[in-house]
Amino acid sequence: MRKTKIVVPIMLTELAELEKVSVSDYRTADIVEWRADFLSADEILEMAPKFFEKFKESKILFTLRTVREGGNIQVSEKKYLQILKEILTYNPAYIDVEFFTHGPSFAALKDFRDKMVLSYHNFDEVPSDLTNRLIKMHEEGTAFVKVAVMPERECDVLDLLQITRDMTLEYGDHFISMAMGDLGRLSRISGYLTGSCWTFASLENSSAPGQISLKETEYILDILEK
Amino acid sequence: MRKTKIVVPIMLTELAELEKVSVSDYRTADIVEWRADFLSADEILEMAPKFFEKFKESKILFTLRTVREGGNIQVSEKKYLQILKEILTYNPAYIDVEFFTHGPSFAALKDFRDKMVLSYHNFDEVPSDLTNRLIKMHEEGTAFVKVAVMPERECDVLDLLQITRDMTLEYGDHFISMAMGDLGRLSRISGYLTGSCWTFASLENSSAPGQISLKETEYILDILEK
Repeated sequence: MRKTKIVVPIMLTELAELEKVSVSDYRTADIVEWRADFLSADEILEMAPKFFEKFKESKILFTLRTVREGGNIQVSEKKYLQILKEILTYNPAYIDVEFFTHGPSFAALKDFRDKMVLSYHNFDEVPSDLTNRLIKMHEEGTAFVKVAVMPERECDVLDLLQITRDMTLEYGDHFISMAMGDLGRLSRISGYLTGSCWTFASLENSSAPGQISLKETEYILDILEK
Repeated sequence: MRKTKIVVPIMLTELAELEKVSVSDYRTADIVEWRADFLSADEILEMAPKFFEKFKESKILFTLRTVREGGNIQVSEKKYLQILKEILTYNPAYIDVEFFTHGPSFAALKDFRDKMVLSYHNFDEVPSDLTNRLIKMHEEGTAFVKVAVMPERECDVLDLLQITRDMTLEYGDHFISMAMGDLGRLSRISGYLTGSCWTFASLENSSAPGQISLKETEYILDILEK
Protein backbone atom coordinates (compact mmCIF):
# COMPACT_ATOMS: atom_id res chain seq x y z
CA MET A 1 0.00 0.00 0.00
CA ARG A 2 1.31 3.41 -1.03
CA LYS A 3 2.46 5.64 1.83
CA THR A 4 1.83 8.96 0.10
CA LYS A 5 -1.81 9.41 -0.90
CA ILE A 6 -2.51 10.93 -4.31
CA VAL A 7 -5.08 13.71 -4.57
CA VAL A 8 -6.39 14.50 -8.04
CA PRO A 9 -8.11 17.85 -8.50
CA ILE A 10 -11.12 18.29 -10.77
CA MET A 11 -11.74 21.81 -12.03
CA LEU A 12 -15.07 22.28 -13.75
CA THR A 13 -15.74 25.68 -15.30
CA GLU A 14 -19.39 25.12 -16.28
CA LEU A 15 -22.36 23.16 -14.90
CA ALA A 16 -22.68 21.16 -18.14
CA GLU A 17 -19.13 19.85 -17.82
CA LEU A 18 -19.95 17.51 -14.93
CA GLU A 19 -21.84 15.14 -17.21
CA LYS A 20 -18.84 14.73 -19.47
CA VAL A 21 -16.55 13.76 -16.60
CA SER A 22 -15.67 10.07 -16.52
CA VAL A 23 -15.45 8.91 -12.94
CA SER A 24 -13.26 5.99 -13.95
CA ASP A 25 -10.51 8.45 -14.90
CA TYR A 26 -10.20 9.12 -11.18
CA ARG A 27 -10.38 5.50 -10.04
CA THR A 28 -6.68 5.29 -8.99
CA ALA A 29 -6.79 8.60 -7.11
CA ASP A 30 -6.87 8.15 -3.34
CA ILE A 31 -8.82 11.40 -3.00
CA VAL A 32 -10.69 13.52 -5.55
CA GLU A 33 -10.37 17.23 -4.90
CA TRP A 34 -13.28 19.28 -6.19
CA ARG A 35 -11.60 22.59 -6.90
CA ALA A 36 -14.93 24.45 -6.98
CA ASP A 37 -13.41 27.89 -7.38
CA PHE A 38 -13.62 27.70 -11.19
CA LEU A 39 -17.42 28.19 -10.83
CA SER A 40 -19.50 31.01 -9.36
CA ALA A 41 -20.91 30.65 -5.84
CA ASP A 42 -24.40 29.88 -7.17
CA GLU A 43 -23.09 27.36 -9.70
CA ILE A 44 -21.22 25.55 -6.90
CA LEU A 45 -24.33 25.13 -4.81
CA GLU A 46 -26.32 24.07 -7.86
CA MET A 47 -23.72 21.50 -8.93
CA ALA A 48 -23.08 20.10 -5.44
CA PRO A 49 -25.82 17.43 -5.23
CA LYS A 50 -24.93 16.05 -8.68
CA PHE A 51 -21.20 16.16 -7.96
CA PHE A 52 -21.47 14.28 -4.71
CA GLU A 53 -23.83 11.74 -6.31
CA LYS A 54 -21.50 11.21 -9.26
CA PHE A 55 -18.43 10.74 -7.04
CA LYS A 56 -20.22 8.90 -4.25
CA GLU A 57 -17.61 6.09 -4.44
CA SER A 58 -14.69 8.50 -4.01
CA LYS A 59 -13.22 10.30 -1.01
CA ILE A 60 -13.90 13.94 -1.82
CA LEU A 61 -11.89 16.94 -0.69
CA PHE A 62 -13.87 20.14 -1.27
CA THR A 63 -11.69 23.16 -1.96
CA LEU A 64 -12.73 26.74 -2.52
CA ARG A 65 -9.39 28.28 -3.44
CA THR A 66 -9.71 32.04 -3.21
CA VAL A 67 -7.81 34.56 -5.31
CA ARG A 68 -5.70 35.65 -2.39
CA GLU A 69 -4.30 32.12 -2.06
CA GLY A 70 -3.79 31.54 -5.74
CA GLY A 71 -7.30 30.40 -6.63
CA ASN A 72 -10.03 31.73 -8.86
CA ILE A 73 -12.94 32.84 -6.72
CA GLN A 74 -13.37 36.11 -4.86
CA VAL A 75 -16.02 35.89 -2.18
CA SER A 76 -16.86 37.64 1.06
CA GLU A 77 -16.12 35.92 4.34
CA LYS A 78 -19.85 35.42 4.78
CA LYS A 79 -20.27 33.80 1.36
CA TYR A 80 -17.13 31.62 1.91
CA LEU A 81 -18.58 30.31 5.18
CA GLN A 82 -22.03 29.84 3.69
CA ILE A 83 -20.66 27.71 0.84
CA LEU A 84 -18.56 25.56 3.16
CA LYS A 85 -21.48 25.04 5.50
CA GLU A 86 -23.76 23.91 2.69
CA ILE A 87 -21.11 21.61 1.25
CA LEU A 88 -20.64 20.01 4.66
CA THR A 89 -24.26 18.82 4.47
CA TYR A 90 -23.13 16.46 1.68
CA ASN A 91 -20.63 14.91 4.07
CA PRO A 92 -17.41 15.26 2.05
CA ALA A 93 -14.46 13.31 3.43
CA TYR A 94 -12.53 16.60 3.77
CA ILE A 95 -12.91 20.33 3.30
CA ASP A 96 -10.09 22.76 2.74
CA VAL A 97 -10.13 25.89 4.91
CA GLU A 98 -7.71 28.74 4.27
CA PHE A 99 -6.55 29.44 7.83
CA PHE A 100 -4.82 32.80 7.43
CA THR A 101 -7.27 34.21 4.85
CA HIS A 102 -10.52 32.96 6.39
CA GLY A 103 -9.88 32.74 10.14
CA PRO A 104 -13.47 33.66 11.07
CA SER A 105 -14.88 30.88 8.88
CA PHE A 106 -12.45 28.42 10.42
CA ALA A 107 -13.57 29.52 13.90
CA ALA A 108 -17.20 29.02 12.93
CA LEU A 109 -16.50 25.52 11.58
CA LYS A 110 -14.38 24.18 14.42
CA ASP A 111 -16.77 21.30 15.02
CA PHE A 112 -15.67 19.87 11.68
CA ARG A 113 -11.95 19.81 12.43
CA ASP A 114 -11.76 16.08 11.83
CA LYS A 115 -12.68 16.79 8.19
CA MET A 116 -10.49 19.83 7.77
CA VAL A 117 -7.42 20.37 5.64
CA LEU A 118 -6.21 23.64 7.12
CA SER A 119 -4.30 25.30 4.32
CA TYR A 120 -1.84 28.08 3.58
CA HIS A 121 -0.55 28.98 0.12
CA ASN A 122 2.26 31.37 -0.71
CA PHE A 123 2.89 31.85 -4.42
CA ASP A 124 5.75 34.28 -3.86
CA GLU A 125 8.21 32.61 -1.55
CA VAL A 126 8.95 30.15 1.24
CA PRO A 127 8.28 32.53 4.14
CA SER A 128 10.84 32.63 6.94
CA ASP A 129 8.04 32.13 9.48
CA LEU A 130 6.84 28.92 7.84
CA THR A 131 7.67 26.77 10.86
CA ASN A 132 5.71 29.06 13.19
CA ARG A 133 2.79 29.07 10.79
CA LEU A 134 2.83 25.27 10.69
CA ILE A 135 2.90 25.03 14.49
CA LYS A 136 0.05 27.53 14.77
CA MET A 137 -2.02 25.58 12.25
CA HIS A 138 -1.12 22.28 13.90
CA GLU A 139 -2.35 23.55 17.26
CA GLU A 140 -5.85 23.93 15.85
CA GLY A 141 -6.19 20.16 15.87
CA THR A 142 -7.44 19.63 12.32
CA ALA A 143 -7.22 16.38 10.36
CA PHE A 144 -4.47 17.80 8.15
CA VAL A 145 -2.29 20.88 7.81
CA LYS A 146 -1.34 21.76 4.23
CA VAL A 147 1.17 24.30 2.99
CA ALA A 148 2.08 25.08 -0.60
CA VAL A 149 4.91 27.55 -1.06
CA MET A 150 7.01 28.92 -3.88
CA PRO A 151 10.76 28.23 -3.70
CA GLU A 152 13.12 30.80 -5.15
CA ARG A 153 16.26 28.68 -4.82
CA GLU A 154 17.20 25.02 -4.45
CA CYS A 155 17.81 25.43 -0.72
CA ASP A 156 14.22 26.57 -0.24
CA VAL A 157 13.01 23.16 -1.41
CA LEU A 158 15.51 21.27 0.75
CA ASP A 159 14.51 23.43 3.72
CA LEU A 160 10.83 22.59 3.16
CA LEU A 161 11.64 18.87 3.11
CA GLN A 162 13.54 19.24 6.38
CA ILE A 163 10.83 21.37 8.03
CA THR A 164 8.15 18.86 7.02
CA ARG A 165 10.25 16.03 8.46
CA ASP A 166 10.82 17.91 11.71
CA MET A 167 7.11 18.75 12.04
CA THR A 168 6.14 15.13 11.40
CA LEU A 169 8.62 13.83 13.97
CA GLU A 170 7.53 16.46 16.51
CA TYR A 171 3.77 16.61 15.99
CA GLY A 172 2.80 13.49 14.06
CA ASP A 173 1.71 12.39 10.65
CA HIS A 174 -0.77 15.03 9.52
CA PHE A 175 1.22 17.48 7.44
CA ILE A 176 1.00 17.99 3.69
CA SER A 177 3.66 20.15 2.09
CA MET A 178 4.72 21.05 -1.42
CA ALA A 179 7.11 23.46 -3.04
CA MET A 180 5.60 24.68 -6.26
CA GLY A 181 7.08 25.33 -9.70
CA ASP A 182 9.73 23.38 -11.59
CA LEU A 183 12.18 23.68 -8.70
CA GLY A 184 9.75 22.19 -6.22
CA ARG A 185 8.84 19.00 -8.08
CA LEU A 186 10.97 16.78 -5.86
CA SER A 187 8.81 17.81 -2.88
CA ARG A 188 5.80 16.22 -4.58
CA ILE A 189 7.33 12.73 -4.46
CA SER A 190 9.34 12.81 -1.23
CA GLY A 191 6.55 12.11 1.24
CA TYR A 192 8.04 8.74 2.14
CA LEU A 193 11.00 10.66 3.60
CA THR A 194 9.48 13.90 4.85
CA GLY A 195 6.20 12.52 6.15
CA SER A 196 4.09 14.68 3.83
CA CYS A 197 0.91 12.62 3.70
CA TRP A 198 -0.57 13.65 0.35
CA THR A 199 0.62 14.75 -3.05
CA PHE A 200 -1.52 16.53 -5.63
CA ALA A 201 -1.33 15.19 -9.15
CA SER A 202 -3.17 16.36 -12.23
CA LEU A 203 -5.29 14.27 -14.58
CA GLU A 204 -4.51 16.60 -17.49
CA ASN A 205 -4.23 20.34 -16.73
CA SER A 206 -2.40 20.96 -13.52
CA SER A 207 -4.03 22.98 -10.77
CA ALA A 208 -0.74 24.38 -9.49
CA PRO A 209 2.68 25.12 -11.01
CA GLY A 210 5.07 22.16 -11.08
CA GLN A 211 2.35 19.56 -10.60
CA ILE A 212 3.08 16.10 -12.01
CA SER A 213 0.45 13.98 -13.74
CA LEU A 214 -1.38 11.17 -11.95
CA LYS A 215 0.20 8.53 -14.15
CA GLU A 216 3.71 9.90 -13.64
CA THR A 217 3.18 10.31 -9.90
CA GLU A 218 1.98 6.73 -9.50
CA TYR A 219 4.96 5.45 -11.52
CA ILE A 220 7.48 7.42 -9.44
CA LEU A 221 5.94 6.68 -6.03
CA ASP A 222 5.81 2.95 -6.84
CA ILE A 223 9.59 3.10 -7.37
CA LEU A 224 10.47 5.32 -4.43
CA GLU A 225 8.15 3.65 -1.93
CA LYS A 226 9.11 0.08 -2.86
CA MET B 1 19.89 18.20 -22.17
CA ARG B 2 19.65 16.32 -18.90
CA LYS B 3 21.42 17.99 -15.95
CA THR B 4 22.14 14.80 -13.99
CA LYS B 5 24.29 12.35 -15.95
CA ILE B 6 23.37 8.67 -15.77
CA VAL B 7 26.11 6.13 -15.14
CA VAL B 8 25.30 2.50 -15.90
CA PRO B 9 27.55 -0.15 -14.35
CA ILE B 10 28.50 -3.31 -16.17
CA MET B 11 29.56 -6.22 -13.96
CA LEU B 12 31.08 -9.13 -15.84
CA THR B 13 31.96 -12.21 -13.84
CA GLU B 14 33.74 -14.18 -16.59
CA LEU B 15 35.88 -13.36 -19.63
CA ALA B 16 33.42 -15.09 -21.97
CA GLU B 17 30.58 -12.79 -20.86
CA LEU B 18 31.95 -9.75 -22.68
CA GLU B 19 31.02 -11.18 -26.07
CA LYS B 20 27.40 -11.57 -25.03
CA VAL B 21 27.11 -7.94 -23.95
CA SER B 22 25.09 -5.78 -26.33
CA VAL B 23 26.61 -2.33 -26.49
CA SER B 24 23.32 -0.87 -27.70
CA ASP B 25 21.76 -1.67 -24.30
CA TYR B 26 24.01 1.07 -22.94
CA ARG B 27 23.44 3.61 -25.70
CA THR B 28 21.34 5.98 -23.52
CA ALA B 29 23.82 5.87 -20.62
CA ASP B 30 25.93 9.01 -20.36
CA ILE B 31 28.77 6.96 -18.87
CA VAL B 32 29.42 3.21 -18.76
CA GLU B 33 31.04 2.09 -15.52
CA TRP B 34 33.11 -1.04 -15.83
CA ARG B 35 32.81 -2.49 -12.36
CA ALA B 36 35.84 -4.76 -12.86
CA ASP B 37 35.86 -6.11 -9.31
CA PHE B 38 33.70 -9.08 -10.26
CA LEU B 39 36.78 -10.56 -12.05
CA SER B 40 40.21 -11.58 -10.78
CA ALA B 41 43.12 -9.20 -11.26
CA ASP B 42 44.51 -11.25 -14.14
CA GLU B 43 41.11 -11.54 -15.82
CA ILE B 44 40.73 -7.74 -15.65
CA LEU B 45 44.01 -7.15 -17.44
CA GLU B 46 43.18 -9.82 -19.99
CA MET B 47 39.72 -8.41 -20.67
CA ALA B 48 40.78 -4.76 -20.79
CA PRO B 49 41.79 -4.42 -24.47
CA LYS B 50 38.59 -6.13 -25.65
CA PHE B 51 36.43 -4.13 -23.25
CA PHE B 52 37.82 -0.78 -24.32
CA GLU B 53 37.54 -1.80 -27.96
CA LYS B 54 33.95 -2.94 -27.57
CA PHE B 55 32.91 0.25 -25.75
CA LYS B 56 35.09 2.61 -27.76
CA GLU B 57 32.05 4.82 -28.49
CA SER B 58 31.20 5.18 -24.80
CA LYS B 59 32.62 7.29 -22.00
CA ILE B 60 34.06 4.67 -19.65
CA LEU B 61 34.48 4.94 -15.90
CA PHE B 62 36.79 2.18 -14.64
CA THR B 63 36.02 1.10 -11.08
CA LEU B 64 37.82 -1.47 -8.98
CA ARG B 65 35.54 -1.59 -5.95
CA THR B 66 37.37 -3.31 -3.13
CA VAL B 67 35.78 -5.39 -0.39
CA ARG B 68 36.45 -2.76 2.21
CA GLU B 69 34.28 -0.27 0.31
CA GLY B 70 31.50 -2.69 -0.50
CA GLY B 71 33.00 -4.27 -3.61
CA ASN B 72 34.13 -7.75 -4.57
CA ILE B 73 37.86 -7.74 -5.02
CA GLN B 74 40.54 -8.00 -2.37
CA VAL B 75 43.94 -6.83 -3.62
CA SER B 76 47.14 -5.45 -2.16
CA GLU B 77 47.86 -1.75 -2.51
CA LYS B 78 50.55 -2.68 -5.02
CA LYS B 79 48.18 -4.74 -7.15
CA TYR B 80 45.46 -2.03 -6.92
CA LEU B 81 47.90 0.58 -8.23
CA GLN B 82 49.28 -1.76 -10.89
CA ILE B 83 45.78 -2.45 -12.28
CA LEU B 84 44.83 1.23 -12.33
CA LYS B 85 48.10 2.15 -14.04
CA GLU B 86 47.57 -0.44 -16.76
CA ILE B 87 43.95 0.58 -17.27
CA LEU B 88 45.01 4.20 -17.66
CA THR B 89 46.99 3.16 -20.76
CA TYR B 90 43.61 2.54 -22.45
CA ASN B 91 42.68 6.15 -21.80
CA PRO B 92 39.34 5.68 -19.98
CA ALA B 93 37.32 8.87 -19.53
CA TYR B 94 37.43 8.36 -15.75
CA ILE B 95 38.89 6.08 -13.11
CA ASP B 96 37.52 5.61 -9.63
CA VAL B 97 40.06 5.82 -6.80
CA GLU B 98 39.10 4.92 -3.25
CA PHE B 99 40.65 7.85 -1.40
CA PHE B 100 40.53 6.65 2.20
CA THR B 101 41.26 2.99 1.42
CA HIS B 102 43.97 3.49 -1.20
CA GLY B 103 45.65 6.79 -0.31
CA PRO B 104 49.09 5.66 -1.54
CA SER B 105 47.71 4.69 -4.95
CA PHE B 106 45.96 8.03 -5.19
CA ALA B 107 49.23 9.80 -4.37
CA ALA B 108 51.01 7.81 -7.07
CA LEU B 109 48.36 8.69 -9.66
CA LYS B 110 48.02 12.40 -8.96
CA ASP B 111 48.92 13.29 -12.54
CA PHE B 112 45.61 11.77 -13.62
CA ARG B 113 43.42 13.87 -11.34
CA ASP B 114 41.47 15.24 -14.29
CA LYS B 115 40.23 11.68 -14.91
CA MET B 116 39.64 10.78 -11.29
CA VAL B 117 36.43 10.08 -9.46
CA LEU B 118 37.72 10.18 -5.90
CA SER B 119 35.38 7.96 -3.95
CA TYR B 120 34.31 7.06 -0.44
CA HIS B 121 31.71 4.41 0.41
CA ASN B 122 30.18 3.75 3.81
CA PHE B 123 27.72 0.85 3.88
CA ASP B 124 26.99 1.27 7.58
CA GLU B 125 25.97 4.86 8.13
CA VAL B 126 26.14 8.51 7.12
CA PRO B 127 29.26 9.40 9.12
CA SER B 128 29.14 12.56 11.19
CA ASP B 129 32.41 13.70 9.61
CA LEU B 130 31.03 13.44 6.06
CA THR B 131 31.39 17.16 5.39
CA ASN B 132 35.04 17.13 6.47
CA ARG B 133 35.70 14.09 4.33
CA LEU B 134 34.12 15.81 1.34
CA ILE B 135 36.21 18.94 1.86
CA LYS B 136 39.36 16.86 2.21
CA MET B 137 38.57 14.97 -1.00
CA HIS B 138 37.61 18.20 -2.79
CA GLU B 139 40.96 19.73 -1.90
CA GLU B 140 42.76 17.04 -3.91
CA GLY B 141 41.52 18.71 -7.08
CA THR B 142 40.11 15.67 -8.86
CA ALA B 143 37.51 15.76 -11.64
CA PHE B 144 34.82 14.44 -9.30
CA VAL B 145 34.29 13.59 -5.65
CA LYS B 146 31.86 10.74 -5.03
CA VAL B 147 30.34 9.57 -1.77
CA ALA B 148 27.90 6.73 -1.25
CA VAL B 149 26.60 6.32 2.29
CA MET B 150 23.99 4.28 4.11
CA PRO B 151 21.20 6.23 5.79
CA GLU B 152 19.68 4.82 8.96
CA ARG B 153 16.83 7.33 9.20
CA GLU B 154 14.96 9.71 6.92
CA CYS B 155 16.88 12.70 8.27
CA ASP B 156 20.14 11.11 7.14
CA VAL B 157 18.97 11.32 3.53
CA LEU B 158 17.74 14.91 3.89
CA ASP B 159 21.06 15.84 5.53
CA LEU B 160 22.98 14.33 2.60
CA LEU B 161 20.91 16.37 0.12
CA GLN B 162 21.65 19.52 2.11
CA ILE B 163 25.37 18.75 2.50
CA THR B 164 25.68 18.08 -1.24
CA ARG B 165 23.92 21.37 -1.98
CA ASP B 166 26.19 23.27 0.41
CA MET B 167 29.33 21.66 -1.05
CA THR B 168 28.23 22.49 -4.58
CA LEU B 169 27.47 26.10 -3.71
CA GLU B 170 30.77 26.44 -1.83
CA TYR B 171 33.17 24.46 -4.01
CA GLY B 172 31.50 24.02 -7.39
CA ASP B 173 29.81 21.42 -9.50
CA HIS B 174 31.93 18.31 -9.07
CA PHE B 175 30.26 16.30 -6.34
CA ILE B 176 28.39 13.02 -6.73
CA SER B 177 26.42 11.80 -3.72
CA MET B 178 23.96 9.04 -3.03
CA ALA B 179 22.28 7.57 -0.01
CA MET B 180 21.91 3.85 -0.49
CA GLY B 181 19.10 1.44 0.28
CA ASP B 182 15.36 1.91 -0.03
CA LEU B 183 15.44 5.01 2.15
CA GLY B 184 18.03 6.71 -0.01
CA ARG B 185 16.31 6.40 -3.39
CA LEU B 186 15.26 10.05 -3.50
CA SER B 187 18.93 11.05 -3.44
CA ARG B 188 19.42 9.26 -6.76
CA ILE B 189 17.05 11.63 -8.59
CA SER B 190 17.57 14.91 -6.77
CA GLY B 191 20.72 16.09 -8.53
CA TYR B 192 18.88 18.99 -10.14
CA LEU B 193 18.42 20.40 -6.63
CA THR B 194 21.49 19.25 -4.74
CA GLY B 195 24.03 19.62 -7.54
CA SER B 196 25.00 15.94 -7.49
CA CYS B 197 26.35 15.53 -11.01
CA TRP B 198 25.82 11.82 -11.65
CA THR B 199 23.42 9.09 -10.69
CA PHE B 200 24.08 5.37 -10.99
CA ALA B 201 21.34 3.31 -12.57
CA SER B 202 21.28 -0.38 -13.28
CA LEU B 203 20.57 -2.10 -16.58
CA GLU B 204 19.21 -5.18 -14.81
CA ASN B 205 20.90 -6.24 -11.56
CA SER B 206 21.78 -3.29 -9.44
CA SER B 207 25.35 -2.72 -8.30
CA ALA B 208 24.33 -1.05 -5.04
CA PRO B 209 21.33 -1.24 -2.70
CA GLY B 210 18.44 1.05 -3.66
CA GLN B 211 19.61 1.58 -7.22
CA ILE B 212 16.90 2.40 -9.76
CA SER B 213 16.90 0.98 -13.30
CA LEU B 214 18.15 2.99 -16.26
CA LYS B 215 14.70 3.14 -17.81
CA GLU B 216 13.07 4.29 -14.57
CA THR B 217 15.82 6.83 -13.91
CA GLU B 218 15.48 8.36 -17.37
CA TYR B 219 11.69 8.56 -16.96
CA ILE B 220 11.92 10.26 -13.56
CA LEU B 221 14.71 12.69 -14.46
CA ASP B 222 12.86 13.76 -17.61
CA ILE B 223 9.96 14.77 -15.36
CA LEU B 224 11.95 16.38 -12.57
CA GLU B 225 14.39 18.22 -14.81
CA LYS B 226 11.75 19.57 -17.22
